[in-house]
Amino acid sequence: MFALQKTEPTHGFTATTEAPAPEPGPGEVLIAVTHAGVCGTDKGIYEWAPWTVSHVSLGVTVGHELVGRVAGLGAGVSRVREGQRVSAEGHIACGSCKPCRTGESHVCKNVRVLGASVNGGFADFVVVPEGNVWPVHDSISDETAAILDPIGNAMHTVMTAGVAGRTVLVTGAGVIGAISIAIARAAGAGTIIATDISARRRELALDLGADHALPGDDPEWPEQARHLTGGDGPDVLLEMSGNPTAISQGLSSLRRGGTAALLGVPTKPVELDLLNDVVFKGATIRGVFGRRMYETWHQVENMLVGGRLNLDSVISHRIPIRDYERAFALMSSDQAMKIVFVIGEDSSLTLRTPARG
Amino acid sequence: MFALQKTEPTHGFTATTEAPAPEPGPGEVLIAVTHAGVCGTDKGIYEWAPWTVSHVSLGVTVGHELVGRVAGLGAGVSRVREGQRVSAEGHIACGSCKPCRTGESHVCKNVRVLGASVNGGFADFVVVPEGNVWPVHDSISDETAAILDPIGNAMHTVMTAGVAGRTVLVTGAGVIGAISIAIARAAGAGTIIATDISARRRELALDLGADHALPGDDPEWPEQARHLTGGDGPDVLLEMSGNPTAISQGLSSLRRGGTAALLGVPTKPVELDLLNDVVFKGATIRGVFGRRMYETWHQVENMLVGGRLNLDSVISHRIPIRDYERAFALMSSDQAMKIVFVIGEDSSLTLRTPARG
Amino acid sequence: MFALQKTEPTHGFTATTEAPAPEPGPGEVLIAVTHAGVCGTDKGIYEWAPWTVSHVSLGVTVGHELVGRVAGLGAGVSRVREGQRVSAEGHIACGSCKPCRTGESHVCKNVRVLGASVNGGFADFVVVPEGNVWPVHDSISDETAAILDPIGNAMHTVMTAGVAGRTVLVTGAGVIGAISIAIARAAGAGTIIATDISARRRELALDLGADHALPGDDPEWPEQARHLTGGDGPDVLLEMSGNPTAISQGLSSLRRGGTAALLGVPTKPVELDLLNDVVFKGATIRGVFGRRMYETWHQVENMLVGGRLNLDSVISHRIPIRDYERAFALMSSDQAMKIVFVIGEDSSLTLRTPARG
Amino acid sequence: MFALQKTEPTHGFTATTEAPAPEPGPGEVLIAVTHAGVCGTDKGIYEWAPWTVSHVSLGVTVGHELVGRVAGLGAGVSRVREGQRVSAEGHIACGSCKPCRTGESHVCKNVRVLGASVNGGFADFVVVPEGNVWPVHDSISDETAAILDPIGNAMHTVMTAGVAGRTVLVTGAGVIGAISIAIARAAGAGTIIATDISARRRELALDLGADHALPGDDPEWPEQARHLTGGDGPDVLLEMSGNPTAISQGLSSLRRGGTAALLGVPTKPVELDLLNDVVFKGATIRGVFGRRMYETWHQVENMLVGGRLNLDSVISHRIPIRDYERAFALMSSDQAMKIVFVIGEDSSLTLRTPARG
Repeated sequence: MFALQKTEPTHGFTATTEAPAPEPGPGEVLIAVTHAGVCGTDKGIYEWAPWTVSHVSLGVTVGHELVGRVAGLGAGVSRVREGQRVSAEGHIACGSCKPCRTGESHVCKNVRVLGASVNGGFADFVVVPEGNVWPVHDSISDETAAILDPIGNAMHTVMTAGVAGRTVLVTGAGVIGAISIAIARAAGAGTIIATDISARRRELALDLGADHALPGDDPEWPEQARHLTGGDGPDVLLEMSGNPTAISQGLSSLRRGGTAALLGVPTKPVELDLLNDVVFKGATIRGVFGRRMYETWHQVENMLVGGRLNLDSVISHRIPIRDYERAFALMSSDQAMKIVFVIGEDSSLTLRTPARG
Repeated sequence: MFALQKTEPTHGFTATTEAPAPEPGPGEVLIAVTHAGVCGTDKGIYEWAPWTVSHVSLGVTVGHELVGRVAGLGAGVSRVREGQRVSAEGHIACGSCKPCRTGESHVCKNVRVLGASVNGGFADFVVVPEGNVWPVHDSISDETAAILDPIGNAMHTVMTAGVAGRTVLVTGAGVIGAISIAIARAAGAGTIIATDISARRRELALDLGADHALPGDDPEWPEQARHLTGGDGPDVLLEMSGNPTAISQGLSSLRRGGTAALLGVPTKPVELDLLNDVVFKGATIRGVFGRRMYETWHQVENMLVGGRLNLDSVISHRIPIRDYERAFALMSSDQAMKIVFVIGEDSSLTLRTPARG
Repeated sequence: MFALQKTEPTHGFTATTEAPAPEPGPGEVLIAVTHAGVCGTDKGIYEWAPWTVSHVSLGVTVGHELVGRVAGLGAGVSRVREGQRVSAEGHIACGSCKPCRTGESHVCKNVRVLGASVNGGFADFVVVPEGNVWPVHDSISDETAAILDPIGNAMHTVMTAGVAGRTVLVTGAGVIGAISIAIARAAGAGTIIATDISARRRELALDLGADHALPGDDPEWPEQARHLTGGDGPDVLLEMSGNPTAISQGLSSLRRGGTAALLGVPTKPVELDLLNDVVFKGATIRGVFGRRMYETWHQVENMLVGGRLNLDSVISHRIPIRDYERAFALMSSDQAMKIVFVIGEDSSLTLRTPARG
Repeated sequence: MFALQKTEPTHGFTATTEAPAPEPGPGEVLIAVTHAGVCGTDKGIYEWAPWTVSHVSLGVTVGHELVGRVAGLGAGVSRVREGQRVSAEGHIACGSCKPCRTGESHVCKNVRVLGASVNGGFADFVVVPEGNVWPVHDSISDETAAILDPIGNAMHTVMTAGVAGRTVLVTGAGVIGAISIAIARAAGAGTIIATDISARRRELALDLGADHALPGDDPEWPEQARHLTGGDGPDVLLEMSGNPTAISQGLSSLRRGGTAALLGVPTKPVELDLLNDVVFKGATIRGVFGRRMYETWHQVENMLVGGRLNLDSVISHRIPIRDYERAFALMSSDQAMKIVFVIGEDSSLTLRTPARG
């Protein structure tokens, strides 16, 4: 089958059509992938960025955002049926560690990650544990279904902070930042202020529901953020950039007693004015990793289906997976928001099902 | 000045134009009322319903939902200015009891209530403590500003339960129920199911954002509510009717581990299947009284201003206050949703300001 | 092997030494039981009380509170080893329903219950899923380990309500009520007031940390409870009796804005003054079922090991399981608090291990 | 009257017996101080440490931890009476800012601080607003009553984090750290691990309830802390040192999904590995300032009175205030834990009451 793999510890991926089709073991599900989202993490792995190195097993099939059809069931699987349209949680939790045993498997100590430590979804087929499979509601498009994973990141961030009836600052309007703006708007936020260094992203932020979009490289924006929130500063900070300056500016503009949720990935240590921006301010900071299993998935489905949340405008490109080089070039040039790979479009489901004993 | 008063322990109100205009004492604010919402409680007092008797001081000017202009400032008032458009919290907390001293003044032990134990807003002028005054944002209409108090009841109920990404059942689509549907929709609820015995109210519920509106007198609706939520039952119950059957049906349809917020006023003891509907279900029930001072008010303002919440359709009638008999007749005949009294419309602000020493 | 079973839909149990020893299937663990706690539910099943009938499968081996040694491992079990001393969670959650999938398996829709719907621990051996096995810390005695399940009920109740720095009322000082008093004391409660109709239980309540113990049949106790808490009423109610009068008195004495956790099992509908005791009071009620899996178990272990919680005085009798009739007679006569069955004491572990293929 | 003042922008205080006795204005209370705790902040002001400069008004009477007798009532004061033994909250909140108006006056935007921006308690008399006065329960000693303010800091920290049934790491066993250890123990913590560079403080930590006390200058302590908590790391970090290395070590040892409460005052920016220690870990950080008004005070009283919390061993010295130089010397030499000034001990209350018109 086709698969996009990380085979060498250098820049780039390897495309192959000779990858062996996987077989679902007991409790596992085989999915014929039809669409797969491209994540900033995928770009990091593609470029072999230092922060990805320790998490990736060379030879792995990459990709962790996906939708497809169930094409095979391992022994004992009972909650899904062949042909069903499904997405999947990309974090495979161990089920045995203390976080897993106390309802916090999103911070599992032994997590395996689709497309990094185990074979992922940039391929004709992928195998995931039954528990990770998420049947997709009929009213959700394939493209949106392909990115339920990052929608879940954004949802987890927004829900962790709590935005209803509150003023919200979003630092960084890339894909997940943009989605979080739309979710915050749909979840009853008051004034939403976005920052980004890209004018294009600021425009998208406004389209998705931000009331104000400030240039992230204007040192005056924290002052403006305070002004736009009646002098108090925003009640909530959703930090999506990972940029140390943005983190520190965001915390400094937060109102006294406010809450910050940090999803962005800072690639080096960050210096904070803890005394004034956290301790004396009585602020709350919440680190956000992955998505709550599977509360966040329910929230995403409920809000997409009933809550009038529409994320179509976040998806800028649909690209056949064999043109993957173009996708990463687009991402580097900052011309893209979310790119969705289209996989095996011409093949019928039957043809693509591997023979099983 | 004009005032509508409860002077006799029987059905009806007394209208007078001879009421003495009040003077603001130290820390108090005089408001020239322009619009006042009519509450179910006002109707209860009008009809001298048993549950209102112990809370009402005979001779009191009734009404507690209002907007107007600041017409006078007592000594020491610094946060508002003459002429400013303001609404007011109708519960005057003592500031000294344990709830007041621990951030829970909405359940003050010694609360005085505008229009019940102290003179209220169905009058040309009303005096309230400075702390109770809420300056109204320019983008909020007079009619909406007149009903910030019940919007706050609904907001408090919705926020107490938490609806973002959850399925919601609203039992009772009267005024506050209808507002809570609109708020739940604006706050990111998934499927919203409303119940009411009135077809007209069910229609309004759908207009305001409910996905389904079920007849409250159909004994099958709890089963339908479970079906419409995938068999689990709704995550959240907002109980706005006070009807014992609705309360018990609502709790029985709630999903295991769900949350119910009770705002409706049951006028007699309610028999519950506590074992199955609360204990074994691991349910949470939250009684809701008034509004959080003043967190709820901030939430209401933030959501009206930034959150794309529109409540115009809840207001069915604007009636000059001198036609108050018609208003209560309309409420009894169930032809009305929210009625707003228009007060002193013809007089200029100046003319109506009482002479002050 | 020996087993105590419910074979007939009438009063009583059947003791047998001819029960087939169970075999652990894949993912299951065989435990050689050494001590088993006797629960009020066991007494209910013994007496064939109406509220137990629908939950019990005739022929089942009863008992769900236990400690023993691991005597066999099914395929794939990796977290425990033979010979290890273990207790077990008695609720076997399905893992697939919405509560299970969102960290709330304690309210699983499809729960199977040890000693009611599946064979339990009043036997030489019991089989439980690996996930339900809880290795017991060396510093915990066998008798205490045998009752980790009801300690967990009490812990869940206390933690759900939150008692640190708060005044606490405990209605019903039976076994779980008594344990909850000790836990509340160890968890930093302020004044603790207990009620019970039994003078003996009131004495035990005082021994375990209650500051006051009031006769539950004195109609004046709610007034006393308010007086003992400075006139406000207790901050927290832990309702452990299931008695409708106690529930209603407890809620009426709760302070405005207080929290009630309900664990007691009311065997018929309960009439509440919802208006005054819940809605107007802004009270929170939380139904409590089972224990959080496995957060509560960690809390119990942490508090027993590090928190200076001692529950020895709750255990009133250690009785060989073959004298089970005496145990239930003692419970009926109210001479007992917790009774622990001693099982297979004379046999060595080796002798009692069933032959396995 | 006697007063200890900060008159010069240099090292040291000025003692005077010529300070004018203050008069209570409307809503204010005059307290004849009998005992006053000496805080690290007082030492900072004494030494004119850079972080104190911007908060102190030269000429101010210092001291903010105190107990005494009510010696005079301003107009309108109703909740206290002359002669009553009282302590006082040292933060005077404005009552008008958004935090104050939403139950969070502990992070008031316009807070005035006793002994820094307004005259404090190192004097024969001090005046505070009625709302700040806290009547002291008879069972609390004068020495403990003198330090209710820092006990409140510790309580706020412990309650913010939540310790019942959890493992706890306390970095920094100075006065507030030591108190927080005692509170955590009384509030049901599991294993408590303390760190400090002083052997003497580590010993006190063990006396107050810590299970382990590790040398803060041993770089291996985070690894030990993980080992002592079963490999997961502590559930909770209470950061009381303000030391950047301790903060960063504490966060790195915290378990995945854990909570850190930061009270310590870092006097310069702190560099954190936000990615690994907060974001990927899903950690929560809560800045802690002051005490919740007045929820924390209730918690302190409830736990001291009912909860078997004893803090006598934290108080190392009782020193007549005129020997204040010795107190600060002791603090610098690290020979002291809490020092309490004894004030005006020989004078009778009557003699010391200022003449009032």
